[in-house]
Amino acid sequence: MKLYTYFRSSAAYRVRIALNLKEVPYNAVSVHLTKDGGQHRKPDYQAVNPQMRVPALELSTGDTLIQSLAIIEYLDEVFPDPALLPTDAIERAHVRAVAQIIACDIHPTNNLVALNYLRKLGHDDKTVNEWYASWVVSGFEAIETMLRPGPYAFGSHVTLADLCLVPQVFNARRFKVPLERFPKIVAVDAACAKLPAFDKARPENQFDSE
Amino acid sequence: MKLYTYFRSSAAYRVRIALNLKEVPYNAVSVHLTKDGGQHRKPDYQAVNPQMRVPALELSTGDTLIQSLAIIEYLDEVFPDPALLPTDAIERAHVRAVAQIIACDIHPTNNLVALNYLRKLGHDDKTVNEWYASWVVSGFEAIETMLRPGPYAFGSHVTLADLCLVPQVFNARRFKVPLERFPKIVAVDAACAKLPAFDKARPENQFDSE
Repeated sequence: MKLYTYFRSSAAYRVRIALNLKEVPYNAVSVHLTKDGGQHRKPDYQAVNPQMRVPALELSTGDTLIQSLAIIEYLDEVFPDPALLPTDAIERAHVRAVAQIIACDIHPTNNLVALNYLRKLGHDDKTVNEWYASWVVSGFEAIETMLRPGPYAFGSHVTLADLCLVPQVFNARRFKVPLERFPKIVAVDAACAKLPAFDKARPENQFDSE
Repeated sequence: MKLYTYFRSSAAYRVRIALNLKEVPYNAVSVHLTKDGGQHRKPDYQAVNPQMRVPALELSTGDTLIQSLAIIEYLDEVFPDPALLPTDAIERAHVRAVAQIIACDIHPTNNLVALNYLRKLGHDDKTVNEWYASWVVSGFEAIETMLRPGPYAFGSHVTLADLCLVPQVFNARRFKVPLERFPKIVAVDAACAKLPAFDKARPENQFDSE
């Protein structure tokens, strides 16, 4: 498999964790989001992913999958061990909801494209950082009430929720969002950090890290 | 089942279509997003959904599910007929990707909370509408290349992709985003509009419509 990735992309980070947990070998191809005016905007990458974002996962069949949660659900269906979703339908829905609060309601308002748009509208770093923090805080407030006794987000097994939480916590720290109000989230992040699959997926451990 | 909904919420609209397609009876409870300073922000609704957004689906077990895609995947698992995802894993990933381009990358940047934030930053309707349109256009550009021969987004069966596309097209029209460049998307929307399950879910056909 070939993973189009960028060390700092939190969506790519989620998929890297999934691939590591399932011990699926892959070749990483770096798509630099700022160099050369954004390598993701070049026609050769648009041919890979019409949305011109990372990640994208090219399968041995020649098919290319996009959107991190769709990719992870695919990996979970095809490589079921270890499972990233519980078996009970209601529990699956709770895990997916936490993942989607991050992937839908926090991250897209905070990705590079959205932040650059705000800068283009004339806003300074302070305003952009406040915007960033507001989405993290409102999403994390909900998630903090939804987590179960640990060590992971939904108990003793790593789930899709952890795969989304850890990269979002990484990003929140990068933007200096205070996390004291979210002790459960911080504890989940710390528990995951001890697992080699998460550690190997960290931005600073990628070959294209700067 | 009890669905907390708002006629104009496109996330609630997706779930209404799913419930109708699967012929699952439900009681609709209106959560008005602008009246009384936003009924979703009241403590009694926060007790239902800690994220204070619609939709939320209360089950007969007493469990409450949130996040529209998590709710729809739950409904698809528990009421499998008609299936909203193909059986092939790669095809499922493609359907989910289209759904997520809308639910993650278009809609959250365009929902009421985000648009109100921009207004709070001092932006006028013109700037807010341009912001709105930019996310619809970039997302629809990708989706237009991903759709299959119709009548629906992925062929002869309605999928999760259609459930997300139709409400987003409704919203795009409401904000007067030109759709001439997206003939496939417009055709899918027209095909879905002929189905009673979609028609019954339209904002103007809700009991809380204004």
